[in-house]
Amino acid sequence: MAPKSVQTAPEPPDGDPKHAARATRSAGRQMRSRLLDGASRLFKQRGLAGTSISDIAAAADAFPSQITYYFRTKEALFVEAACRDVLYVARAAEQAALQATTPAEYTHALVETVTATDSVAFFAEALTLTRRRPDLAPLVERTIERLHGEGMRAYAGQIERHGWKSLRDPDASSRRFWALAIGVTVEGHAMGRSAEDMGAEMLRVLGDQATTRTGDTRLRLVGDRDVSNSDSSDGENSP
Amino acid sequence: MAPKSVQTAPEPPDGDPKHAARATRSAGRQMRSRLLDGASRLFKQRGLAGTSISDIAAAADAFPSQITYYFRTKEALFVEAACRDVLYVARAAEQAALQATTPAEYTHALVETVTATDSVAFFAEALTLTRRRPDLAPLVERTIERLHGEGMRAYAGQIERHGWKSLRDPDASSRRFWALAIGVTVEGHAMGRSAEDMGAEMLRVLGDQATTRTGDTRLRLVGDRDVSNSDSSDGENSP
Repeated sequence: MAPKSVQTAPEPPDGDPKHAARATRSAGRQMRSRLLDGASRLFKQRGLAGTSISDIAAAADAFPSQITYYFRTKEALFVEAACRDVLYVARAAEQAALQATTPAEYTHALVETVTATDSVAFFAEALTLTRRRPDLAPLVERTIERLHGEGMRAYAGQIERHGWKSLRDPDASSRRFWALAIGVTVEGHAMGRSAEDMGAEMLRVLGDQATTRTGDTRLRLVGDRDVSNSDSSDGENSP
Repeated sequence: MAPKSVQTAPEPPDGDPKHAARATRSAGRQMRSRLLDGASRLFKQRGLAGTSISDIAAAADAFPSQITYYFRTKEALFVEAACRDVLYVARAAEQAALQATTPAEYTHALVETVTATDSVAFFAEALTLTRRRPDLAPLVERTIERLHGEGMRAYAGQIERHGWKSLRDPDASSRRFWALAIGVTVEGHAMGRSAEDMGAEMLRVLGDQATTRTGDTRLRLVGDRDVSNSDSSDGENSP
């Protein structure tokens, strides 16, 4: 069966094999991307078990055989779609956080972007699936490494740019952010929590990651905070 | 079909209906508990999809009809077994942490106990399942509330007993602990990490939860720690 994308792809302008190869590669990339878009939408709505290969093919205006050609199995497509999705939301979160001028604003922007979508829940479902499918682990592993690495670089860049004072190294901050995002999302979705509630819970358990440098030279009595002080935004305020 | 447990339960010693009712209740509890034990073992080994009701019945020396009698569906049994399992490991972690004399020892004991078993991964799988099965959510909700509540009480008790200085309120500490346990476990299992690696990662992202009171009255220059200090155990050391 001929892939549908080839039918709509522009014909190479002449007989040059380089042009033909480029057009085929580009059409292949477009079809892959369209299949991933359709799959992400359906998987997030209905989960792995509730979505069939033919549903996805129909949503992407493709043939089921194209899904098996590009991704081999529904599970592999699920994991690849979820990994792509969480990397998109991570980039969107970094973009949103670029506007921040204080560490608290930075954390708020990240948390708000990440909890506003289903992407972390989708990714967590892919992680759970991968536990029983070690053949799909390498992609998940690379994705987690990219989340940690890019989060760390973005955070270190902001610290540098604004002269904030980090309370721990940016690598640990980034790892903690994503582990908490996954934990809070998995708990929250099981409990039917709203995006707002999950955002509030994430801010509550994250605590502050950095302080502005303005406090640098104050002297403070160590241990002067009350145990009963439950204001989470104050949890790690002082380095 | 007569439940197998009734066949082995002690006969009521006389015709007193209270005795008979008590014997039946007790036999029912024993059978429920045996089914949950067998189910936990198999589900942790093989996952939900890899385990059938008849496998569990065979493992518990019971009839498949007893599983549907006590739990209705395999999914409901999965969620109940996972909830029971994570509450057991939470209690074991608290017991292990009772020996701790410093906040760092306390956190180490909790993390070591929790990462040494498959229980958190099992519970995370139940949470993911519940997202698509809201009928199973109430049990999961009560379990999360118990994890948070009992964790908070145990931690507040240790703080009181040893005179430690908490860096945030015990409720936020307990919520953070469990969200991180779930996040680190889901990531770690997908990546094929060992229990030791997951324990190290959890300690790294948790940071310190409290300090001993010995530092209470020292004066310290606020902000005197270097950004490049990557020793995670030092991340939140000073209140």
